Amino acid sequence: MSRPPGRKQENHKISRDLFVLTYGALVAQLCKDYERDEDVNSCLDRMGYGIGIRLIDDFLAHSDVKKCRSYSETADVIAQVAFKMYLGVTPSVSCCSATGNEFSLILDKNPLVDFVEELPVERASLCYCNLLCGVIRGALEMVHLAAEVTFLQDRLRGDAVTEIRIAFVRKAEDRKHKRK
Amino acid sequence: MSRPPGRKQENHKISRDLFVLTYGALVAQLCKDYERDEDVNSCLDRMGYGIGIRLIDDFLAHSDVKKCRSYSETADVIAQVAFKMYLGVTPSVSCCSATGNEFSLILDKNPLVDFVEELPVERASLCYCNLLCGVIRGALEMVHLAAEVTFLQDRLRGDAVTEIRIAFVRKAEDRKHKRK
Repeated sequence: MSRPPGRKQENHKISRDLFVLTYGALVAQLCKDYERDEDVNSCLDRMGYGIGIRLIDDFLAHSDVKKCRSYSETADVIAQVAFKMYLGVTPSVSCCSATGNEFSLILDKNPLVDFVEELPVERASLCYCNLLCGVIRGALEMVHLAAEVTFLQDRLRGDAVTEIRIAFVRKAEDRKHKRK
Repeated sequence: MSRPPGRKQENHKISRDLFVLTYGALVAQLCKDYERDEDVNSCLDRMGYGIGIRLIDDFLAHSDVKKCRSYSETADVIAQVAFKMYLGVTPSVSCCSATGNEFSLILDKNPLVDFVEELPVERASLCYCNLLCGVIRGALEMVHLAAEVTFLQDRLRGDAVTEIRIAFVRKAEDRKHKRK
């Protein structure tokens, strides 16, 4: 990375649509490259992961977020600070497990699909925005949080809402510690 | 396009780095897909064109720019309004032809290459940011201006500055009109 970490930039805000359209070009290219939706999805996830592990520096430098003390706080920061910074929207967050390590981000509006009318019939299993899952996973890993991140529901595939599930993976040490 | 033209959005400003990194992933994918730099460059230009012809609506809706009365004014709007909106930087503009239809945009800082240290040796002819040329070309075409847009110089390839050349193509009617 060429940018010194922590350097604040004044001019880092841009209009969203060039990004949204460029993302569309990326997905279209992958759909040309891979026949199976699963392969496109995992490629997007992999790319997102590579982006997330680099983006975290930018996020920490620009967000003034302090260390989170719980999974719940981390999920709130992702929704209220990170989504706001990078997509200009704020999903709602709900905890989905009794053990307190699974969270759903519900997107009423998903700007990444602004220019997409609907998925082609032959691409019914495409997770169009799967890059986001990889980005979240990669960024979390850099702050030492392992997580599985997946699209549970997607309006683009006909679901009622768009829902990203973040399942934090408890560390082996945590479990050992609890047992003692 | 699913968005009604002209609708203003309040929340359309986002942080730039996710876009810059996603663009990097797109270029990397094309480098996997095509062996020859020329093919990557023309693919980026073609994708950019497709983006430009859609982005122009967003630009006109958010920029409050009025109809330009000269090529020079158009070049200024591209540099001072469009680059500012979509990349957060403002290139300097200079006219480069006695006939007043060629302009250079000089970028002191090119945020699209923020995370790129240098081009790999085997990619020495890659026009990393060639998407931008296509975007400009496509957007101009939608306001009935034909132009050739190319990278003349690129810091990433060792040049002293990064320079985009816009050569407006005079319309046949203009020339006929002048001859009369």
